[in-house]
Amino acid sequence: MSQVSRDPWLLTPGPLTTSLSVKQAMLHDWGSRDEAFIAINARVREKLVAIAGGGDDFVCVPMQGSGTFSIEAAIGTLLPANGRALILINGAYGKRMAKICDYYGRSYEVLAWPEDVPNDARAVDARLAAEPALTHVFGVHCETTSGILNPVEEIAKVVAAHGRQYVIDAMSSFGAIELDAGKTPFAAAVASSNKCLEGVPGVGFIIVRKDILAACEGNAPSLSLDFYDQWRAMEANAQWRFTPPVHCIAAFEQALREHEAEGGVAGRGRRYRRNCRVLVEGMRALGFATLLPDALQAPIIVTFHMPADPAFEFNAFYRKLHERGYIIYPGKLTVADSFRIGCIGRLGEAQMKAALEAIKTTLDEMGVRQCAPAVPDPAEA
Amino acid sequence: MSQVSRDPWLLTPGPLTTSLSVKQAMLHDWGSRDEAFIAINARVREKLVAIAGGGDDFVCVPMQGSGTFSIEAAIGTLLPANGRALILINGAYGKRMAKICDYYGRSYEVLAWPEDVPNDARAVDARLAAEPALTHVFGVHCETTSGILNPVEEIAKVVAAHGRQYVIDAMSSFGAIELDAGKTPFAAAVASSNKCLEGVPGVGFIIVRKDILAACEGNAPSLSLDFYDQWRAMEANAQWRFTPPVHCIAAFEQALREHEAEGGVAGRGRRYRRNCRVLVEGMRALGFATLLPDALQAPIIVTFHMPADPAFEFNAFYRKLHERGYIIYPGKLTVADSFRIGCIGRLGEAQMKAALEAIKTTLDEMGVRQCAPAVPDPAEA
Repeated sequence: MSQVSRDPWLLTPGPLTTSLSVKQAMLHDWGSRDEAFIAINARVREKLVAIAGGGDDFVCVPMQGSGTFSIEAAIGTLLPANGRALILINGAYGKRMAKICDYYGRSYEVLAWPEDVPNDARAVDARLAAEPALTHVFGVHCETTSGILNPVEEIAKVVAAHGRQYVIDAMSSFGAIELDAGKTPFAAAVASSNKCLEGVPGVGFIIVRKDILAACEGNAPSLSLDFYDQWRAMEANAQWRFTPPVHCIAAFEQALREHEAEGGVAGRGRRYRRNCRVLVEGMRALGFATLLPDALQAPIIVTFHMPADPAFEFNAFYRKLHERGYIIYPGKLTVADSFRIGCIGRLGEAQMKAALEAIKTTLDEMGVRQCAPAVPDPAEA
Repeated sequence: MSQVSRDPWLLTPGPLTTSLSVKQAMLHDWGSRDEAFIAINARVREKLVAIAGGGDDFVCVPMQGSGTFSIEAAIGTLLPANGRALILINGAYGKRMAKICDYYGRSYEVLAWPEDVPNDARAVDARLAAEPALTHVFGVHCETTSGILNPVEEIAKVVAAHGRQYVIDAMSSFGAIELDAGKTPFAAAVASSNKCLEGVPGVGFIIVRKDILAACEGNAPSLSLDFYDQWRAMEANAQWRFTPPVHCIAAFEQALREHEAEGGVAGRGRRYRRNCRVLVEGMRALGFATLLPDALQAPIIVTFHMPADPAFEFNAFYRKLHERGYIIYPGKLTVADSFRIGCIGRLGEAQMKAALEAIKTTLDEMGVRQCAPAVPDPAEA
């Protein structure tokens, strides 16, 4: 349990620390048919399309549940039974998309890379050229497993050149790392209210080309997770098909207001990049090594190698940091023993520096002298 | 728009009016792996099993999304591809279960009644006797379409006697109308955080016999909506598989505390029955007729026939009531032109009486002299 009186700072991939004003937006109740709620919902949808540079050709359709619910809904709605997907995998979230295709009995193949290697647009190009049956490409923008950034703009151009549809899992990047429909010709991008938009968790959304979604009637194997049906219902009467998480959506509107006030994607990204730089520099100064070289590192979450020093025990480290009011995250890598520290949510340089202080004090307390990993640091190789 | 400064009272089937203390429970952030959140989640799950009188043979598994998401998850997880469901339909929510089976390609047949006639246990008995291929019976406890109460205890005994599984959509009744596993031998019951438990919307749950759920591996056609997988993951590490709506769950715990403080199902039911009586008596005094006779009316939501008086126009009536701070609900009936007024959520006799006053003033303003329906009132037939 935390020994500090405030909520712990969440240095995780989500749920994240949100502003008090975002949470206070939940201190009201709304009916789902209420004009006030309908207006909130419409503004949220419009702002999300604008953040993606979507214009009139795109529409945003929200969906209850976690981000994975929206990813599943996107796959089910966009990929027809007679389609075939190419799934780009360099971490757990790419693998999850393949698992969803397994559940749905959808045809797919994968292109896989190690967790510290980005998706390669040339490999996508070659595969699409070789296999005309491939109708869709699914890939992850920032793979939270490692924190790596995949070159979505380059891939989108390749996929568009082949006349296929590129669907981007932009869950952990949307709102902080540019994704502009004008430069990155995607068919659809999926993200959620939490993560870089700093709302509370409970709703995800797709930003999708209208002409593509319009052709998706009858595709989805799930009623609840049918983006086409959700879209049609919302266009018809501006309401959700099933009870919306009204408080979460009201908080989301406030979060989008604060996103805009910070300078949109550019401003939000600037704060996160500073958080990331402070974190990485501070941790390296303590002797820690990052999994990724700086050029591949997204300013979202950073993977650090476990120190080789036998005095370092992750669970104790985690618990002691928690007691000091900082929650970090275990690793999810298959390639190396690691842990993760997030840079996103309503926190800035002051919190990152204070977290580094807490880490230093904790290491001293544990008697850890050496934070270098047992393996050579690939970032410096 | 409302002309009053408070939030409108939501006299609807949900989202509902919640207490300020329930909403204030959302003024914190939690990590999903955080011990404090894990403890909240465990307490919520245990209390829900206790409310259903479930004991050690039952487990509660929560699911992100609206109530329909949990209904779909229950059907997908419990009904195997080689099973066959008997769906009991006397309203829109029964029909929705059939639609989910259509999406999933699951085998089913229906027993249907008009919206003002309850499910008949003898018909279920006869159908199960005649058709050994039927493995499951799906039915609705309180059908919100009309507000009718179905005899789930009687049906459960019939289904159990035939050795089949009875799955109850208890969405709009759970927490206010008794559903006791000791008296009503159900396989599973599904409800949500909103409705009679008076939490905020965003999470549903199943209360299911462990031996039944344990046999459901591989049934679900959806990863997100797989109750078996959600259960196994939660048993393994006490965490959700995918980002939980932490604020909604914290509010849910507070709502369950307030439910207990009110005297549990008995106390909550008492308040709603009083709300319902005040409403029905007051509306009848104004000349309105209820769809249902009192014996079939659940104290959840009441369907009223539209007045025949040409001065009555529902949209104007709705809007004027909204301006006075009361939100009612349109009808969903196929059998008669109607509207609905809910009795649930954080409101009591004082609000129901004030709503009646607002209705009276609105009728006067509209020049409505006669609230009797054009059709004879079946409740008095």
